[in-house]
Amino acid sequence: MQLPKEILEIAEGIKNMRIRGAGRIAKAAVQALKITVERSQAKNPEELIKELDYVAKYLLHTRPTAVSLPNGIRFVMYRVKTAFKNGANLEDLKITAIDAADKFIKNSELAIKRIGEIGARRIVSGDTILTHCNSSAAISVIITAFKQGKDIQVYATETRPLFQGRITARTLANAGVPVTLIVDSAVRFFMNEIDKVVVGADAVAANGAVVNKIGTSQIALVAHEARTRMFVAAETYKFSPETMIGELVKIEERSPLEVVDEEFLRQNPNVKIRNPSFDVTPPEYIDLIITEKGVIPPQGAVLVLKEEFGWIIGEELIRGKEVYSTYESCGID
Amino acid sequence: MQLPKEILEIAEGIKNMRIRGAGRIAKAAVQALKITVERSQAKNPEELIKELDYVAKYLLHTRPTAVSLPNGIRFVMYRVKTAFKNGANLEDLKITAIDAADKFIKNSELAIKRIGEIGARRIVSGDTILTHCNSSAAISVIITAFKQGKDIQVYATETRPLFQGRITARTLANAGVPVTLIVDSAVRFFMNEIDKVVVGADAVAANGAVVNKIGTSQIALVAHEARTRMFVAAETYKFSPETMIGELVKIEERSPLEVVDEEFLRQNPNVKIRNPSFDVTPPEYIDLIITEKGVIPPQGAVLVLKEEFGWIIGEELIRGKEVYSTYESCGID
Amino acid sequence: MQLPKEILEIAEGIKNMRIRGAGRIAKAAVQALKITVERSQAKNPEELIKELDYVAKYLLHTRPTAVSLPNGIRFVMYRVKTAFKNGANLEDLKITAIDAADKFIKNSELAIKRIGEIGARRIVSGDTILTHCNSSAAISVIITAFKQGKDIQVYATETRPLFQGRITARTLANAGVPVTLIVDSAVRFFMNEIDKVVVGADAVAANGAVVNKIGTSQIALVAHEARTRMFVAAETYKFSPETMIGELVKIEERSPLEVVDEEFLRQNPNVKIRNPSFDVTPPEYIDLIITEKGVIPPQGAVLVLKEEFGWIIGEELIRGKEVYSTYESCGID
Amino acid sequence: MQLPKEILEIAEGIKNMRIRGAGRIAKAAVQALKITVERSQAKNPEELIKELDYVAKYLLHTRPTAVSLPNGIRFVMYRVKTAFKNGANLEDLKITAIDAADKFIKNSELAIKRIGEIGARRIVSGDTILTHCNSSAAISVIITAFKQGKDIQVYATETRPLFQGRITARTLANAGVPVTLIVDSAVRFFMNEIDKVVVGADAVAANGAVVNKIGTSQIALVAHEARTRMFVAAETYKFSPETMIGELVKIEERSPLEVVDEEFLRQNPNVKIRNPSFDVTPPEYIDLIITEKGVIPPQGAVLVLKEEFGWIIGEELIRGKEVYSTYESCGID
Amino acid sequence: MQLPKEILEIAEGIKNMRIRGAGRIAKAAVQALKITVERSQAKNPEELIKELDYVAKYLLHTRPTAVSLPNGIRFVMYRVKTAFKNGANLEDLKITAIDAADKFIKNSELAIKRIGEIGARRIVSGDTILTHCNSSAAISVIITAFKQGKDIQVYATETRPLFQGRITARTLANAGVPVTLIVDSAVRFFMNEIDKVVVGADAVAANGAVVNKIGTSQIALVAHEARTRMFVAAETYKFSPETMIGELVKIEERSPLEVVDEEFLRQNPNVKIRNPSFDVTPPEYIDLIITEKGVIPPQGAVLVLKEEFGWIIGEELIRGKEVYSTYESCGID
Amino acid sequence: MQLPKEILEIAEGIKNMRIRGAGRIAKAAVQALKITVERSQAKNPEELIKELDYVAKYLLHTRPTAVSLPNGIRFVMYRVKTAFKNGANLEDLKITAIDAADKFIKNSELAIKRIGEIGARRIVSGDTILTHCNSSAAISVIITAFKQGKDIQVYATETRPLFQGRITARTLANAGVPVTLIVDSAVRFFMNEIDKVVVGADAVAANGAVVNKIGTSQIALVAHEARTRMFVAAETYKFSPETMIGELVKIEERSPLEVVDEEFLRQNPNVKIRNPSFDVTPPEYIDLIITEKGVIPPQGAVLVLKEEFGWIIGEELIRGKEVYSTYESCGID
Repeated sequence: MQLPKEILEIAEGIKNMRIRGAGRIAKAAVQALKITVERSQAKNPEELIKELDYVAKYLLHTRPTAVSLPNGIRFVMYRVKTAFKNGANLEDLKITAIDAADKFIKNSELAIKRIGEIGARRIVSGDTILTHCNSSAAISVIITAFKQGKDIQVYATETRPLFQGRITARTLANAGVPVTLIVDSAVRFFMNEIDKVVVGADAVAANGAVVNKIGTSQIALVAHEARTRMFVAAETYKFSPETMIGELVKIEERSPLEVVDEEFLRQNPNVKIRNPSFDVTPPEYIDLIITEKGVIPPQGAVLVLKEEFGWIIGEELIRGKEVYSTYESCGID
Repeated sequence: MQLPKEILEIAEGIKNMRIRGAGRIAKAAVQALKITVERSQAKNPEELIKELDYVAKYLLHTRPTAVSLPNGIRFVMYRVKTAFKNGANLEDLKITAIDAADKFIKNSELAIKRIGEIGARRIVSGDTILTHCNSSAAISVIITAFKQGKDIQVYATETRPLFQGRITARTLANAGVPVTLIVDSAVRFFMNEIDKVVVGADAVAANGAVVNKIGTSQIALVAHEARTRMFVAAETYKFSPETMIGELVKIEERSPLEVVDEEFLRQNPNVKIRNPSFDVTPPEYIDLIITEKGVIPPQGAVLVLKEEFGWIIGEELIRGKEVYSTYESCGID
Repeated sequence: MQLPKEILEIAEGIKNMRIRGAGRIAKAAVQALKITVERSQAKNPEELIKELDYVAKYLLHTRPTAVSLPNGIRFVMYRVKTAFKNGANLEDLKITAIDAADKFIKNSELAIKRIGEIGARRIVSGDTILTHCNSSAAISVIITAFKQGKDIQVYATETRPLFQGRITARTLANAGVPVTLIVDSAVRFFMNEIDKVVVGADAVAANGAVVNKIGTSQIALVAHEARTRMFVAAETYKFSPETMIGELVKIEERSPLEVVDEEFLRQNPNVKIRNPSFDVTPPEYIDLIITEKGVIPPQGAVLVLKEEFGWIIGEELIRGKEVYSTYESCGID
Repeated sequence: MQLPKEILEIAEGIKNMRIRGAGRIAKAAVQALKITVERSQAKNPEELIKELDYVAKYLLHTRPTAVSLPNGIRFVMYRVKTAFKNGANLEDLKITAIDAADKFIKNSELAIKRIGEIGARRIVSGDTILTHCNSSAAISVIITAFKQGKDIQVYATETRPLFQGRITARTLANAGVPVTLIVDSAVRFFMNEIDKVVVGADAVAANGAVVNKIGTSQIALVAHEARTRMFVAAETYKFSPETMIGELVKIEERSPLEVVDEEFLRQNPNVKIRNPSFDVTPPEYIDLIITEKGVIPPQGAVLVLKEEFGWIIGEELIRGKEVYSTYESCGID
Repeated sequence: MQLPKEILEIAEGIKNMRIRGAGRIAKAAVQALKITVERSQAKNPEELIKELDYVAKYLLHTRPTAVSLPNGIRFVMYRVKTAFKNGANLEDLKITAIDAADKFIKNSELAIKRIGEIGARRIVSGDTILTHCNSSAAISVIITAFKQGKDIQVYATETRPLFQGRITARTLANAGVPVTLIVDSAVRFFMNEIDKVVVGADAVAANGAVVNKIGTSQIALVAHEARTRMFVAAETYKFSPETMIGELVKIEERSPLEVVDEEFLRQNPNVKIRNPSFDVTPPEYIDLIITEKGVIPPQGAVLVLKEEFGWIIGEELIRGKEVYSTYESCGID
Repeated sequence: MQLPKEILEIAEGIKNMRIRGAGRIAKAAVQALKITVERSQAKNPEELIKELDYVAKYLLHTRPTAVSLPNGIRFVMYRVKTAFKNGANLEDLKITAIDAADKFIKNSELAIKRIGEIGARRIVSGDTILTHCNSSAAISVIITAFKQGKDIQVYATETRPLFQGRITARTLANAGVPVTLIVDSAVRFFMNEIDKVVVGADAVAANGAVVNKIGTSQIALVAHEARTRMFVAAETYKFSPETMIGELVKIEERSPLEVVDEEFLRQNPNVKIRNPSFDVTPPEYIDLIITEKGVIPPQGAVLVLKEEFGWIIGEELIRGKEVYSTYESCGID
């Protein structure tokens, strides 16, 4: 099947990390499904379903470990397939698909806003907040609280190896929030001054463990040691249904060149570089997860997953031996 | 008083960090005392003492927070003053001073070797070791164990902001030790694979707390969480007698330009940078301290200090209201 | 609008703490709604709704931080508004309101009895129990177990500043339970003799944290340190739906005169007094919460809240910008 | 009432522990209900119900503390009683009962297989796993992972007093899994080499506590101390609905002759022997529970119980004052 | 033997708690020995020794559990007996005794000053300090730091049952230190605002455990939970040599009338009151002990005891079967 | 050199474990030195020294990992060699050796008695004590307390694989102490009933870690979790000077036939058996060590070692490259 250039570009962008961040990836993939429908030459419902199935699988293989990507695709495909089973005609199917795609994208944007509003209620004047990496949801919490007139200040870690913390520091400074940049190793040095840690998430597992930028789990441990509250801001489409059936969230390891330059590699061929991008924070170090649906303890993740996907997904996943098949039996609203 | 150029250079080198590392600083300062004697034009013991006092004080003010520096100076000055009180003549005083300086320098080099021998006994074949920053004593432990034929491998953190971990990785790789470089934030990710953490120390306090490169304390916490043993390799002249009378080891804060470049500063005038160089690891996260005199639990630091300096130093320090005055009443052997 | 004297008295009683205790406050407020209906001169459903709305808001502002109060009002108003939307006539509306009020009051009393029955199953002969403050639910657990013939004894803290523990001790002693009164500071001294801690709750938050009388959280910590089980007895109407959308349960600070007398204040004008009434016990120190619906882990609070109020309350709360509006979309049964 | 010999044998076998293991007990009891129907001489639905009620109660009293046994009986009886209430005739009732019995037995076998598939996803090549006692579900996880080609090895504790660990070691060795047998006391000695602990469960309580073979709770503690993950593999029919209403899972104490021989008892009449069979592992030491429905955090047990039995069971249990009565109001699917 | 009235008054004052506080008791007892000598009619050394022995034993029995009391007496008697053994004449013996008594009293006063100077070095501007009860040594640390111009503030617990914290609050307020009085139960509520806890000690045991006013150990636990430093200020004569040979420091239980009034007792005859005065803080919750000889980790107590009393005291104590006999073989300087 | 039959028997007995227990081994070795002297045909001091050196080395190689063995030999040889250096004649040398041997044996027996007296002071009426394995020192503490009329009871673990706990249970029962035998896995089940754990030690390391029978470290962890005090009873000759220079105490692994019988091995050739005899309890889980010299915190071990052996042993050990050489420079009294 010949895919439209725009779709190929999206798929490529996700693959080579031009499109980055769990939320942006999901939205781009859903956008690609919408484009598929708009460009479709399908003559009947069956053909459209076949096209969408093809594109969906194609997108799923661009970043096999992401959690938001399959969740976005499931959201759209579940609605399309349900309509198809109920005998919708071609036009209705198209409308269903486009509506679902639009809804996912809108929900996703709304989620950041809602998380900001909910999370900001947990911030009080006088708070010193630590954040790590560059999370839209965490920044939304901080800036919302600041705009409510709360007198807060922020420590941002630089977040090696890619220094995303500098972007966070700049964003906060531009919004007027007093912000201090520190190296990642200085977290424990400053922890006794910090009242709350607020970070984002790349994925939330069924047992409440949070996968996020490398370093998050040791920040959480350091916060726990000092009785500092640890908040994770995460849209529900980052909750991983596959973890309900035991799947581990895979941790991507990226290029050594993010850690050292080529010269170092050349001069030190016997020095090995390991560069995992994420780590796993266990639920016992997380005080609460702020979702767009409300605040939950990390152990409440299973409740969210159960509501969003049902236990049945377990069966489907096992039967199908493939994550892809699961979008038939679940959906997010 | 006009100081010889070599002494001025040493003092300047300590101040501007060209001479770096607790051990090197102490040896340089002691060397400066030796030069003072060699160049001295003093006509009688009184004049020589005056000259040495002047230089000692001058050196003490180059890095007021270091621990090895005053300990080195005390070592020499205590011997000189004792000889002076006992009526030594000019020539004997000079010999005493030069011998003391030579002995301190030799002891200091021997200490690294002895720590390597002692610490290596705690390393067994199959061990995976983590180290942080660039400590001669810690590296001595690792390389000694490796040269004994033990099958070990090492994780070295890069150690932001100055990347001293790269030097460590290179040194170990050159010695043939299999070594992997990781970002500081990845310590908890790898901790379950690690059997022992070995780090150095900038200062050891009376209650067993260890002052070392920023990040050490969170590594120690992460090791403790995973029941991984935490070893500190520290020469006894890094034990701080001032902490016995309550002095806090001061934590140096260094330039923002170690963390970001000038362009970042210019573009983000509202982003504050904090750059503390050291942090404090509490004794409960340290399994043992390896000194050249043997292995002690961190709480044994007070025993070492007591032996080296005696309780009396407390009185002296309080009376003199100045750290400098203490070298009169103590000594290291 | 002119409110009947009885309602004003209830509102005043809640405000000035004559009516005290989360349960009693909620029941009094619901009683006020019932009286409103009984005294109502409304000529049509619209007028009755308007009257009830007015009274409900009036009551909600008497103690803006309580949790049981809005939950009681929501219980009644939700039923009334639903009936109104479904076209009920004036008479039916009145019956609905009165029935709802009666049901809430009866449920609330039944809940204490049920909690006693459920919680008593966790108490075995030979147990030594610690309790803090004066909780009807906790006392119900203890006395129910004792009446079942279990051989138990109780330590009651005096509970500064208001000494409610003396009331607890008297109540238990009168029921025949062997009871020992201790100062609050002696909890850790006795903890190794204690098998279970049983306390009540003023509010339970979405992440399982429990707000209760000042001192509860340190008792919970001390129990945790000694592997003593910590039980919280809490009716489900003490679960706070607002915490699902991030609201912090506000901690009331009360008069210095509860801590010292006027003479002390006069003689020591520079001594500041702080007198917070409640503290927050984190879920990790709570073994289980005993509700009238059954036993849950603290992290199960979100499940109870979800069932009682639904996620939707989140949206409503955010939209309405006011807690009051939420009673439209939720209900307790 | 005269019971068929086969049923008496089953009842006797459960009582005297010839039929052993939570799963086997439940299946045998359900089988007895099926036999009751097959041998029934009942002339009408009322008589059949009476017979089944009699047998159900008889079976429930063979091991009053087991959790799987009443859950199995409830599964069948709930379906039968529901059909009876809906006016089913004798033949339909019989079919309902037999179908329910067959379904329970089949589900129970399927559950072990599903748990193996789900749990195996959490095992990675290179893992060293510790297991305790002899759990079908835990062994299913290990062997499934091994058959997927994962390079794993296992430590099995011998599991005093009955040495069930030797059976586990033999089973694993026969399946080709590299396995090492150790005494129970050696767990902490080896824990730093272990990546994951996988054990079964006899019962799971509403707050997520797990009742399992004596020694499990200290293994869990030792694992927690070393940041080793602790997995419990448990079919959902091991979840105890009675614990929702506060019932403690009773811990059976068995004969001293399992611990010492008769000669020891005779020679040492003053040495008392205590031999509890199970202990309780608190949820904070369990990373996740693997059920056939998916992975949950231990605190998610209440969600499973709620779904399987509903809150209402609480009321029934309290009203009926007898566990037996509860099968009327609940069911497992 | 007929004792002078002044000595009887001192003994009585210690017994009935008119003379209160470990330091004041020890000084009063030593004063009594001095008076004995001044009033002595002894005709030869033997008689004087006999008199002193009698008085020493008499004083030791006034408060058998105190630690400072026997240490004070040992200080004087050891010197006297040594002089006696060396053949001192009557006059010299008297001078020895009076000098020793004066020295102990002076040392004891100096110790408070020295502890203040040493401890104040650990306090920095911006610190918020919590203290409990009314300790001269702890107050000395706080006020010394404040007088050095450090910007500090203090939380003082009221310290039930006798409200000694009110005296502390008044003393600090009068010295100009900003101070807030809270109930003992509010410690955990405020702990996250507190940088350092500073308390005194009634006794320090050989393993580093600290006996102090009831409530201290739970404050230490709460501080530890929040990574707040815990300092104990203790003169070395509070270190208990008896604990080296296993003696437990006995915990005094005092009158119920300190907890409730007579009317409560009359009205509630079945409510038992327990009123222990002290509790034991284990060394793992203490960061350091500040003595007049310098700062030690709690585990360094054994080093101080060893230096002050030597191991030999163990033998003496066991041989003599009486604490009193030990003053022959030890001494404090 | 031809050794007398009695010495060969002792050496063989130590090797094959007929002579078992750290104390008995040391005494037997010292006895062998005594016999050497008694049977010696040496014609001059030089020859006697040569004989003793030979026997000493021979004995040291029977159990190269024991700690009490070399300490016993050092005790004797140090005195002999010192006398030799001071020019003692043959007769005097013999007397010195025999006296030293007798003194060591007597001291060793006295130590058990003294530990009993000291440790018993920490036991109070009402205490429930847990012990593990079969330690003379621990039993001495328990029986001494019991004979003092204290109302105590004991739990003894059976101590797999060799069931030494049965011997302990019998010994205590015969002495009249109420004792209960449990499996090793049941420790956590009973821990909340236990007030104190008392165990022995095979070796104590410089950092306070205690090497004792396998299982001790998890008992210590379980005790720590429940705030139960953990006491180690250890004679000072079990303190290991080699650990001061970094030596690890080697953990002996013994025959699989202690764990399973030959038939199991034959039938299960693929089941590997691991049988380590000891494990290492870290100092943080030990409240105090009871020695015959008094009570110390585990971290005080370095102080005892320092006193017994001095720092110098470090140098000697490094220089000599052999543990044996160290007896020249140290001694126990």
